[in-house]
Amino acid sequence: MTLEVGVLGYRFMGKAHANALARLPMFFSDAPDVERKVLVGRDEEALSEAADQLGFAETATDWREVVDDVDVFYNLGPNHVHAEPSIAALEAGTPVFCEKPLAPTLEEAAEMAEAAREAGVPNGCAFNYRFVPAIRYAKRLIDDGEIGEIRHVRGRYLQDWLVDPEAPWAWRLDEEMAGSGVLGDLGAHTVDLVRFLVGGDEHAGEIERLSGHLQTFVDERPVEGEDSETRPVTVDDAYSAQLEFANGAMGTLEATRYATGHKNDHTIEIQGSEGSLRFSLERLNELEVLRRGENRGYETILVTDEDDPYVDHWWPPGHVIGWEHTFVHENYELLSAVANDGTFEPSFEDGLAAQRILAAVEDSDERGEWVDLG
Amino acid sequence: MTLEVGVLGYRFMGKAHANALARLPMFFSDAPDVERKVLVGRDEEALSEAADQLGFAETATDWREVVDDVDVFYNLGPNHVHAEPSIAALEAGTPVFCEKPLAPTLEEAAEMAEAAREAGVPNGCAFNYRFVPAIRYAKRLIDDGEIGEIRHVRGRYLQDWLVDPEAPWAWRLDEEMAGSGVLGDLGAHTVDLVRFLVGGDEHAGEIERLSGHLQTFVDERPVEGEDSETRPVTVDDAYSAQLEFANGAMGTLEATRYATGHKNDHTIEIQGSEGSLRFSLERLNELEVLRRGENRGYETILVTDEDDPYVDHWWPPGHVIGWEHTFVHENYELLSAVANDGTFEPSFEDGLAAQRILAAVEDSDERGEWVDLG
Amino acid sequence: MTLEVGVLGYRFMGKAHANALARLPMFFSDAPDVERKVLVGRDEEALSEAADQLGFAETATDWREVVDDVDVFYNLGPNHVHAEPSIAALEAGTPVFCEKPLAPTLEEAAEMAEAAREAGVPNGCAFNYRFVPAIRYAKRLIDDGEIGEIRHVRGRYLQDWLVDPEAPWAWRLDEEMAGSGVLGDLGAHTVDLVRFLVGGDEHAGEIERLSGHLQTFVDERPVEGEDSETRPVTVDDAYSAQLEFANGAMGTLEATRYATGHKNDHTIEIQGSEGSLRFSLERLNELEVLRRGENRGYETILVTDEDDPYVDHWWPPGHVIGWEHTFVHENYELLSAVANDGTFEPSFEDGLAAQRILAAVEDSDERGEWVDLG
Amino acid sequence: MTLEVGVLGYRFMGKAHANALARLPMFFSDAPDVERKVLVGRDEEALSEAADQLGFAETATDWREVVDDVDVFYNLGPNHVHAEPSIAALEAGTPVFCEKPLAPTLEEAAEMAEAAREAGVPNGCAFNYRFVPAIRYAKRLIDDGEIGEIRHVRGRYLQDWLVDPEAPWAWRLDEEMAGSGVLGDLGAHTVDLVRFLVGGDEHAGEIERLSGHLQTFVDERPVEGEDSETRPVTVDDAYSAQLEFANGAMGTLEATRYATGHKNDHTIEIQGSEGSLRFSLERLNELEVLRRGENRGYETILVTDEDDPYVDHWWPPGHVIGWEHTFVHENYELLSAVANDGTFEPSFEDGLAAQRILAAVEDSDERGEWVDLG
Repeated sequence: MTLEVGVLGYRFMGKAHANALARLPMFFSDAPDVERKVLVGRDEEALSEAADQLGFAETATDWREVVDDVDVFYNLGPNHVHAEPSIAALEAGTPVFCEKPLAPTLEEAAEMAEAAREAGVPNGCAFNYRFVPAIRYAKRLIDDGEIGEIRHVRGRYLQDWLVDPEAPWAWRLDEEMAGSGVLGDLGAHTVDLVRFLVGGDEHAGEIERLSGHLQTFVDERPVEGEDSETRPVTVDDAYSAQLEFANGAMGTLEATRYATGHKNDHTIEIQGSEGSLRFSLERLNELEVLRRGENRGYETILVTDEDDPYVDHWWPPGHVIGWEHTFVHENYELLSAVANDGTFEPSFEDGLAAQRILAAVEDSDERGEWVDLG
Repeated sequence: MTLEVGVLGYRFMGKAHANALARLPMFFSDAPDVERKVLVGRDEEALSEAADQLGFAETATDWREVVDDVDVFYNLGPNHVHAEPSIAALEAGTPVFCEKPLAPTLEEAAEMAEAAREAGVPNGCAFNYRFVPAIRYAKRLIDDGEIGEIRHVRGRYLQDWLVDPEAPWAWRLDEEMAGSGVLGDLGAHTVDLVRFLVGGDEHAGEIERLSGHLQTFVDERPVEGEDSETRPVTVDDAYSAQLEFANGAMGTLEATRYATGHKNDHTIEIQGSEGSLRFSLERLNELEVLRRGENRGYETILVTDEDDPYVDHWWPPGHVIGWEHTFVHENYELLSAVANDGTFEPSFEDGLAAQRILAAVEDSDERGEWVDLG
Repeated sequence: MTLEVGVLGYRFMGKAHANALARLPMFFSDAPDVERKVLVGRDEEALSEAADQLGFAETATDWREVVDDVDVFYNLGPNHVHAEPSIAALEAGTPVFCEKPLAPTLEEAAEMAEAAREAGVPNGCAFNYRFVPAIRYAKRLIDDGEIGEIRHVRGRYLQDWLVDPEAPWAWRLDEEMAGSGVLGDLGAHTVDLVRFLVGGDEHAGEIERLSGHLQTFVDERPVEGEDSETRPVTVDDAYSAQLEFANGAMGTLEATRYATGHKNDHTIEIQGSEGSLRFSLERLNELEVLRRGENRGYETILVTDEDDPYVDHWWPPGHVIGWEHTFVHENYELLSAVANDGTFEPSFEDGLAAQRILAAVEDSDERGEWVDLG
Repeated sequence: MTLEVGVLGYRFMGKAHANALARLPMFFSDAPDVERKVLVGRDEEALSEAADQLGFAETATDWREVVDDVDVFYNLGPNHVHAEPSIAALEAGTPVFCEKPLAPTLEEAAEMAEAAREAGVPNGCAFNYRFVPAIRYAKRLIDDGEIGEIRHVRGRYLQDWLVDPEAPWAWRLDEEMAGSGVLGDLGAHTVDLVRFLVGGDEHAGEIERLSGHLQTFVDERPVEGEDSETRPVTVDDAYSAQLEFANGAMGTLEATRYATGHKNDHTIEIQGSEGSLRFSLERLNELEVLRRGENRGYETILVTDEDDPYVDHWWPPGHVIGWEHTFVHENYELLSAVANDGTFEPSFEDGLAAQRILAAVEDSDERGEWVDLG
């Protein structure tokens, strides 16, 4: 059996997933066979060109014709088109994979998760950083108790593409179009990683309460090509949050588009009673590990050994992989779940859980006080 | 003229300052002459031994006899003996140098600052990290506009000496005796560095509001040598804070005694519209600097060149200095101010300003909401 | 026109190149169309399985039937089958790409280079590290004079898979089968990178003389599965060399399979009168750069910006690539040369030049004295 | 009893040792009492000023009057005045401490070592890097077998003060006055560290043979203040060496004054069958350690714990020390040996052993072939 895949969206994420699908046969021999069946978009010319480049057999301009005609539906469109097509696909019994954040509003995210629950088919939210081998290895260490009781979690996602106040206005800076700013775009990834790594009841548990802070540094920006015209920036440029977990552990989160010199710098630090971990996306093949009793300082581990997560599919030890490989692993797990009627994580439920936390950050920022979750 | 110095306290800090005083003549030829005149303490035997080791001519068990009999009074005692002797010295017209945090309560700190103001003599609060050459160099870059408008500040102070839940109870864990936990002990340093580096009106300005969080992970600890007896831990094990500065910049602060593997890891990160800086106390000879336009990544600068702050007094480029050298620089500045009727910074006023911020962190934590300063 | 490619060899390198060929259409739209036509090997069953996995249309057990029947011939077999098939292909006018080192002996390498010269078709030697964006960027800096006159070059390639004296004997440890040990396997890469980066006459120029040192640490090793039987190790476990370049610059080279903890650690350091560079394969997205006058310390540059070499074909800034991407770049350049009757570098001539240096290292080691090249 | 110390030389090294002597009482309570008795030099005015600053009771312009009048004689003068005063002191039965390299020629070094042997009093050669806590800790690991059989040793000492071809001529560049260039100045330190760490018979053993290479990049340099006058550079600007140890281990050594951006970058790397070590003088509080079986990557250890070598004399964990502290440790060991009729290492014998290796490097460079030692 060959799984037919329909994909809405053909830009950055479309390419990342098309590439992942194309690479499965050579490297994951037990992955289901996949056909890149149909690519969905609105601009027919661009769409047709993209289908050629990305290896899709057909194109469609109306997702309605696609969602019940494929074996899996990938919704990689912008935020505001996440809910309707995803729900329609689920109602048609089609497994769905959707970009993050799940939806522009908590309400829509809840509806999507509800639809996924009712459909009972595999569904996934695109938190690809769960599929970095070093992150998987970190998770293994935490699950094995090597880090002990979690005390501290820190997550930061730093970019710098808005650092110049004269950088032009873009649709991502408009609340209507983008839903939110850095919080949904970058914060969603961090929140999911934190939940994945320490969220289990046997670790730090759920985030019980938090205090959030949003900031917009530059209120309006010039419109490109339009002399002296500006448009307002209506989303957050940066956010921070303090967390308290069920077990009493503390967390701090942060993201910004104003971290001069940082291109895509997503870092996670965890400290527990038995050990500590550090990870940075810009050195994604590495994990820094410290175990009390065994180590006096952090070990810089190259997570490229044969028995490291997913690594046996690739190259010998020390031959590093890149950012795009996380998509291959993610697609492998998703399609395997689809083929075997299994389940996939992170699911819509995980997407909703992350969204609840993001919403609480906004809520807390508005109210100027800590907010309880759950 | 030789300045006679009286010092209350002869343990860790007493030794650090006695060493600094002893080293001035060889390395700072323009420093005033200093006599380590009298060492003050309660335990006569230990005191006498310490005076021998640390090079003091006399000892005294009552600070009252000392404060108006010396040219400078160093109050290096525990928190709860900061206020009374310091104020007495100031009232006697004697310049005073006092350990941080300035006092166990905001009220006492305010009284001390008031006494300093009225006395009109040099006074100092022991924030020695202002005297790290790399920090001074960072300040120079910020003042010269090389970092541009400040957007983000992060300060963390990580230690791990309480990570073992069976580590014994100590007086530092008792609120009566210690005043506060990690907030006053480590947080005070971070808050002062942040104020020093970005607090000027032309930079980020004052901290306008903040959200604080305190946590005690282990509520009681065994009493050493007493089978199965425990005592309660009544201070904070860790704190975090979110800051908003006058210019809109965001800050996050954190300190803990539960960061497994981190011994004395004090880090500061700053990002502005024109550049970024990173500093770590464990590599105190280095500063990481990134200037937009000039750099694509952080430069790891060894701040040991002849024209770097204080470095011409020491060794050739690349010959690194240590933690203790910050005390030499601090004492040099303080004693120069005393000898020349100048002023010294960080002063009691700076100590009070830091304390206000620490108090606001506690206040915010209790109220569960953001707190305005000023 | 579609280029038909025939590939001899289907293990590690076969997979790396098949993957590269498969990825070209999606990421290098101006690359020629390619068909993975025929895979060549001896074990029919394994070959057929590999052809399926790697996407080849046909298989062949005799390279003679292939070399004049394809548009490009890739010789990815072991050392001792480099010469004959490569020369046959060239004599048939077929462009050839051959694994490194070019041949087990200098004589064969010279014959191959001669055949390439006579054939006048594109030919390449598999020094894939020339195609790391950070290395290309380093080359650009050197060519632009940013490093000034070259003074020092250091190249090291450290692995550790033989560190255990009880690790079993393998064919790679036999001179007959492997040609040489670490010198040809790892040293060839380093020598080529050094030539590529500083070998131009306007830089350090050719290596004029060198002193070499070979060592075998463990003389015999157990045969796997055979109780108490051992076989002799007849190749070098490690080598080092001192170089003198035409312009007087000094170089040191080294490689080993006994560097405990180092998996695939290939590093290059260059110092010139105007600047310095450092590169490590384990962090292949980074280049450390220091420019006298502009920098006080090394900048750690993430070479993932849009205008960095090859990066515009991949992902946005900060989204790192992996080891395998070097093969995509290499194949892109090679096939473009084939399609456009252009030339490709590194060529067989470059392979021969590297081999001359490796041979001189062996020669010098035997004679115990410096050896002149050229 | 108080040891009276006479010191010849009052510049860089004079200050480093005077400081060390001054600090002993406060930090090494079991060190013998010391009096900085007499400072020896030729320029009376500068000498008198230096004696004031460095805390010496008297001055003398003729070392002959001093060598038998003190309890220890420190010869910190330039190379060409090492032999005569040191031998005179030893013949007078006075313990001697002498700067490195021991002498300008191997012959003189041998005479000095012979004099030391006959005198039978403590004698020392100023290889202060043996007294870095992290180096001591490395030695402990090697002695405990944690690194296993030594396979590879690398030592590099990089500076950059000659990188500008227009930097003025200085006496250090004249063979008559300086003896040698970088080889004696920097190489001596590296050679001693290598001998200290792995030279024992139970480790790599003695260096049995080596290949050396010297280079002078800039042959003449302008005379400061003299228009268009230049003087020849008659010493080496850089050296490299390949080593073979008794146990078959390989070594590479290197030093230069042309490593743009490196101020005082002395690094040692060691790889053995059970583990690996890395040290850098610019981060002298750290040691990178990897133990096969226990570690997957290098641990970055801060060697500042109470049970680390010498650290209990200083500050709590994480409070880093500087370059100058190595002199305190060195003086402590030397003076303890003098007071207790013990022995001190590194001795004149060690100085001679290092010199033999340096001479072999020169010899090998001249002959263009490997040279046997011993």
